[in-house]
Amino acid sequence: MSDLKPINFTRGIPAIESFPADDVIDAALAALKAHGRTILQYGAAIGFAPLVEWLAQWQGVKTNQVLTSNGSLQLVEFLCWHLVKPGTIVFTEAPTYDRTLVLLRRHRAQVIGIPLQADGPDIGALEAELKKHTPLFFYVIPDFQNPAGATCSAEKRRQIAALAEKHNFLLLEDAPYRQLRYRGREEPRLLDLAPARTLHMSSFSKLIGPGPRIGFMFGDPALISKIAEVAGDTYISPNFLAQGVAYEWCRRGLLEPQIENLKALYTPRLDACLAALRKYVPDAKATRPDGGFFVSITLPDGVQTTAVRTAAAKRNLNLADGLAFFPNGGGERFLRLPYCALTTAEIDEGIRRLADTIKEL
Amino acid sequence: MSDLKPINFTRGIPAIESFPADDVIDAALAALKAHGRTILQYGAAIGFAPLVEWLAQWQGVKTNQVLTSNGSLQLVEFLCWHLVKPGTIVFTEAPTYDRTLVLLRRHRAQVIGIPLQADGPDIGALEAELKKHTPLFFYVIPDFQNPAGATCSAEKRRQIAALAEKHNFLLLEDAPYRQLRYRGREEPRLLDLAPARTLHMSSFSKLIGPGPRIGFMFGDPALISKIAEVAGDTYISPNFLAQGVAYEWCRRGLLEPQIENLKALYTPRLDACLAALRKYVPDAKATRPDGGFFVSITLPDGVQTTAVRTAAAKRNLNLADGLAFFPNGGGERFLRLPYCALTTAEIDEGIRRLADTIKEL
Repeated sequence: MSDLKPINFTRGIPAIESFPADDVIDAALAALKAHGRTILQYGAAIGFAPLVEWLAQWQGVKTNQVLTSNGSLQLVEFLCWHLVKPGTIVFTEAPTYDRTLVLLRRHRAQVIGIPLQADGPDIGALEAELKKHTPLFFYVIPDFQNPAGATCSAEKRRQIAALAEKHNFLLLEDAPYRQLRYRGREEPRLLDLAPARTLHMSSFSKLIGPGPRIGFMFGDPALISKIAEVAGDTYISPNFLAQGVAYEWCRRGLLEPQIENLKALYTPRLDACLAALRKYVPDAKATRPDGGFFVSITLPDGVQTTAVRTAAAKRNLNLADGLAFFPNGGGERFLRLPYCALTTAEIDEGIRRLADTIKEL
Repeated sequence: MSDLKPINFTRGIPAIESFPADDVIDAALAALKAHGRTILQYGAAIGFAPLVEWLAQWQGVKTNQVLTSNGSLQLVEFLCWHLVKPGTIVFTEAPTYDRTLVLLRRHRAQVIGIPLQADGPDIGALEAELKKHTPLFFYVIPDFQNPAGATCSAEKRRQIAALAEKHNFLLLEDAPYRQLRYRGREEPRLLDLAPARTLHMSSFSKLIGPGPRIGFMFGDPALISKIAEVAGDTYISPNFLAQGVAYEWCRRGLLEPQIENLKALYTPRLDACLAALRKYVPDAKATRPDGGFFVSITLPDGVQTTAVRTAAAKRNLNLADGLAFFPNGGGERFLRLPYCALTTAEIDEGIRRLADTIKEL
């Protein structure tokens, strides 16, 4: 093994230096003093009421449209328990978030991937699949997509909303990176374009930190209430202690300045990543995200991610395979680069090692 | 409706006055100062390492035998995802914890109830069922059973362990009330009698409070590791913020004195419940628990719980139906009385109202 410092382009985790630990201490104190008996007790499956109300106000939905959970991933699981049967057809982008695919497969959904382009899902391919099947839902990550980094254009969002209406399917909009736009203009949420048929998911994992495991979903009150029933049957109530702390933190107005801090921390990292790719790997096709956690590249012709990954490990450069992001195969040359938890120097050094690895293959 | 003060004998929740809120504040401060970057980040699916080590030492198991989760109920769900297929046979006590039945049914297990007696499951009935089927596991709540209040004798525990060995099935031992013994001698854990085939579950919900949602399971390292994989696929990691707080609280030696406080708080409540039953409802057959959260009664001949429940509501006495606790029917005269969250005066008044309700039916 090399004695180079390890560099991990593996998981989409936030930078530990971004965590507002001191403010969380103050919020924890306040939460336990003001709400101790509530947040140490069992509670409603939808979550700690003051946090539910705060989230509703923040995101412009009604309180009965909100369901919180221990992280947002599990909300996909609850939706599956409520509606997915073996063989149920679900569309996702291809590539898409690998952990969602694991849950969909666990419930034996038939997953059909719609190719993702630089400006969102390929609408022609989506229309062609809709001639063959109607999915229960289309799982879309419109903002700074995981794993690709692509953002869906406003025009494509309108087309997707119209197709959902026409063919009568749900939209599962996963938007944990939406607040982290480093440049450019915010696009409308699918929730705004198709409010009756969108379940919009997000989380505090990329804003406060993942440790408190606070995810949330907004949608039609009747559907939210059914999903909440599954949640209650699974774990009685979510983590009220953590939700009380998050509520006190939000109530103090700390979320907006924290988002600004995150943008200031992560923008140079995105820029470093894009610059290093241009400099060291100019023949790899890279996405050019305006926010979020990920840049992705398609390796040059004839270069396979699996081979690069194995060779890169010898330089203490740790990469993730691309295959797991693709529901129906493909992705042999796909490589996701999560840059947020690395310094600009580490990013530059990591991509230099990547280029050296490719050259030597 | 009556203008009497409502009395709820419905859910098995702890008394809010039992929560050690001030000590939890100190623990939260210490946890965020010492471990802020770890407990605000993603972590291992098994849980926050210092808590895992503390639990292992406390309960005399190895670290690789421990899996924590957001409450213990979800551990049943993870076990089901790992091993239960539609039609898989599972034995439970009858009656048993209704929420476990919901999860078993969700996974389409075939649940067979073994009648529960005052000293544990009916071993003759268990042996008779074992001649017909071998279950994947037998779900047992040996200590101060939910909902009955019964405790399994040492002799029956040995018989159950021997039958598990002979017929090759697992024991899922759910023991959240075990630490709350108000009198009498502790019986051995199934985990001690059949260590290779027992998954022992417990939680801090009845000791610190349910709000932090900290459950845990001890068992064979290979099996624990498989269940942890399901957990990770479901929510990445459990709530590290809450686990960090619980760890700091435990590390300060606060668990043992807290258990003594809980015993001092709950023992008079159990005594008040048993005394009121003797006084007001002498012809109902009641269990005589030595600890835990529940007394249960079998209503007099010809009196149905459903009818009592409806009539009691008019006196602002809220009761739970008995039927949900029975996997294969029965329980028409069964009534669970969770007494811990009520004062001795409320318990006396509640059971007086129960007796008046029965008389008027």
